[in-house]
Amino acid sequence: MRHLITTKDFNNDEIIELFKEAKEFLDEKPKDFLKEKSITTIFFENSTRTLSSFESAARRLGARVLRLDVSRSSSSKGETLYDTAANLDAMNPNAIIVRHANSGVPQILASHMHCPVINGGDGKHAHPTQALLDLFTIYEHFQGNIENKRVLIVGDIKNSRVASSNIELLSRFGIKITLVAPPHFMPNSSLPKSYHLNEELIESTDIIMSLRTQVERHEKIVYASLKDYANDFCINPKLIKDKKLILLHPGPVNRNIDISDELMKDQRALILKQVKNGVAIRMAVLKKLILEN
Amino acid sequence: MRHLITTKDFNNDEIIELFKEAKEFLDEKPKDFLKEKSITTIFFENSTRTLSSFESAARRLGARVLRLDVSRSSSSKGETLYDTAANLDAMNPNAIIVRHANSGVPQILASHMHCPVINGGDGKHAHPTQALLDLFTIYEHFQGNIENKRVLIVGDIKNSRVASSNIELLSRFGIKITLVAPPHFMPNSSLPKSYHLNEELIESTDIIMSLRTQVERHEKIVYASLKDYANDFCINPKLIKDKKLILLHPGPVNRNIDISDELMKDQRALILKQVKNGVAIRMAVLKKLILEN
Amino acid sequence: MRHLITTKDFNNDEIIELFKEAKEFLDEKPKDFLKEKSITTIFFENSTRTLSSFESAARRLGARVLRLDVSRSSSSKGETLYDTAANLDAMNPNAIIVRHANSGVPQILASHMHCPVINGGDGKHAHPTQALLDLFTIYEHFQGNIENKRVLIVGDIKNSRVASSNIELLSRFGIKITLVAPPHFMPNSSLPKSYHLNEELIESTDIIMSLRTQVERHEKIVYASLKDYANDFCINPKLIKDKKLILLHPGPVNRNIDISDELMKDQRALILKQVKNGVAIRMAVLKKLILEN
Repeated sequence: MRHLITTKDFNNDEIIELFKEAKEFLDEKPKDFLKEKSITTIFFENSTRTLSSFESAARRLGARVLRLDVSRSSSSKGETLYDTAANLDAMNPNAIIVRHANSGVPQILASHMHCPVINGGDGKHAHPTQALLDLFTIYEHFQGNIENKRVLIVGDIKNSRVASSNIELLSRFGIKITLVAPPHFMPNSSLPKSYHLNEELIESTDIIMSLRTQVERHEKIVYASLKDYANDFCINPKLIKDKKLILLHPGPVNRNIDISDELMKDQRALILKQVKNGVAIRMAVLKKLILEN
Repeated sequence: MRHLITTKDFNNDEIIELFKEAKEFLDEKPKDFLKEKSITTIFFENSTRTLSSFESAARRLGARVLRLDVSRSSSSKGETLYDTAANLDAMNPNAIIVRHANSGVPQILASHMHCPVINGGDGKHAHPTQALLDLFTIYEHFQGNIENKRVLIVGDIKNSRVASSNIELLSRFGIKITLVAPPHFMPNSSLPKSYHLNEELIESTDIIMSLRTQVERHEKIVYASLKDYANDFCINPKLIKDKKLILLHPGPVNRNIDISDELMKDQRALILKQVKNGVAIRMAVLKKLILEN
Repeated sequence: MRHLITTKDFNNDEIIELFKEAKEFLDEKPKDFLKEKSITTIFFENSTRTLSSFESAARRLGARVLRLDVSRSSSSKGETLYDTAANLDAMNPNAIIVRHANSGVPQILASHMHCPVINGGDGKHAHPTQALLDLFTIYEHFQGNIENKRVLIVGDIKNSRVASSNIELLSRFGIKITLVAPPHFMPNSSLPKSYHLNEELIESTDIIMSLRTQVERHEKIVYASLKDYANDFCINPKLIKDKKLILLHPGPVNRNIDISDELMKDQRALILKQVKNGVAIRMAVLKKLILEN
């Protein structure tokens, strides 16, 4: 049984195949490839965007979606994760999509289930479909010529599962990564690092991947420095001028903290294209995992 | 792109067409006119009745419904309304149904989306499908002869989006409106007004439209006077005796405040017919907006 | 109009028919028997397991499911149960599935509705589909030879709607019941009782039905004695040794209170089979009530 827990679960050829499929889903009305398949979503962490992207993807392929409402779930009755998994499994879904605040939960579920488990984000660990849709957006933009393209990953890299999945995936496709963050947001990594976001860096990049500052997760100390952070790292027109590049963000954007208001409508900002691409990539992932397993 | 933000968005001929369609939906099993269409509901204000009416309507026409769970939405992550709209739009729904406590939100969403937006109620501003189902109920009851019929709108008119939409719509179809309310519930309006509900008014009306007293919205002062309000304005058998009229209410009824217990089962009370008609009207609206756009 | 409020609503022949149907649903992909039927779930009490079992069952038969979100429902607006029922009814569902903390609510709803009402659990009163799936699991295990089989029902029998429904149903099929509980969990009953769970009882039984200790419902006093309870009544390997029997539990299991960790993977524990059987039985119930009414 194959799952999608991290981006490592698919090799490069498989990923290029996913991109071809996703492209077709964008271009023409998809068939009901997953007719009569049942997909369960169980999101222990709040989400509208990723949840609705997955559920839209499932429905567009004709699948039935059962959303488990976790606030009402047995986890509040003290059930162990193993028992949750076993019970989910006993209902015979064709796939499970799970998000959880703790790293490793999707892997644990996967080891107990007889259907594909798709990680919709686990703690600071991984968010593989986000990285796939990011790379797909890059791939489409550069018409497949992505090797040696240069990307700045900017923001709270240390705490970001989006960054972590992208670092693995983009490296593998020959994209050159530089990490840009203040010290408290910088992870341990052998990748090139910069503690400042300056014109020189902008001049030498093709892609800026801005991360979401997890405003609500940080302690007061970081709150106090949000303005400082924005001063130094918010992507704005003064910084990127008319440099030819693309700007990505996983959303929702903290305006004027992650990215300045003016840039949100800039043609180089592909944030809404990422949303569209996200549904298509998730369709491709669901189709692959459910039909090939 | 056409939307339904207020009742003004449809002209009289279009509304009569909607009524014909709704009548057919009541009389016979509808076809899957909206097969493979995706409809998103996003209700920022609590609702079971309107939400389930819309979702039932959508499903009966074969559409797929994605319910966005707003308690889990990005609005709690500080996302702007514009970003919410842009993101909803990027997922390519065929229609959005929105309810919000702030007047004007559906209009703002509509201006940013590439699909029809249907207002499921916004602040004190408008609730167009409620007015359409109310007029449809009147229209059916009087077999289309509604011109010069007389209606008393009774209750908290000032704070009611239901009243506001009905005033616009019923006037346009030649129905004669009298507003009946205590001073603190009476809006500025050039329509005939009465600050008392008396036999004379009852004698000269064809329709009573009782509004829901928003018990939970009012301050302590009004709570204290709820009993006074009920004494003076609750529709009861003593008041309407055997006068030939019909009694409407958008629900849920505050029994013995809006309408007395005994009248709820009276044949003149068409409240449950309104519920049935509501699903049919919403089917007609969805079909029109999605297929004609 | 037939409903399923308690197990008494079906006679033995009907139940055997349900079991045959459920068996077929387990063995082969079911047809869309409920295509274009609308099923409404309204759970006033928290539940993931039963709710998702019913919704899975409905969807597997091709029905459309409308989940009413009770936290957002009009009951918070002071609506009476009668009005809720009347309004649900006015939307013309083909069946309603209801759970409520108060005994008797499904019966009241049923008396006002024009569609089958299925009790998903009401207070301490009844949980008929749970008892049906329990009996079905026993029936399948013993290949139909269930008369004079012996069952120990162990735990908080007094407060358990699962126990109450099982006592009615299992008795009717000739299964010999012994109630095993500490005094504060023991109901008034003419059935054989034991206040201790000992080897002799185990030796002479074919089935152990362990109940869920409602840890979250009990007062501090009982919390304090949970450890005592577990010492005396937790089903564990020392107790059942290699006795040939089957072990049932409605889930979610309190590990090491209801049943010990080690036994959860024991072949005699049919808990996950119960989950699978639950979906199948609910499919059979929905099909019967909707198509035969």
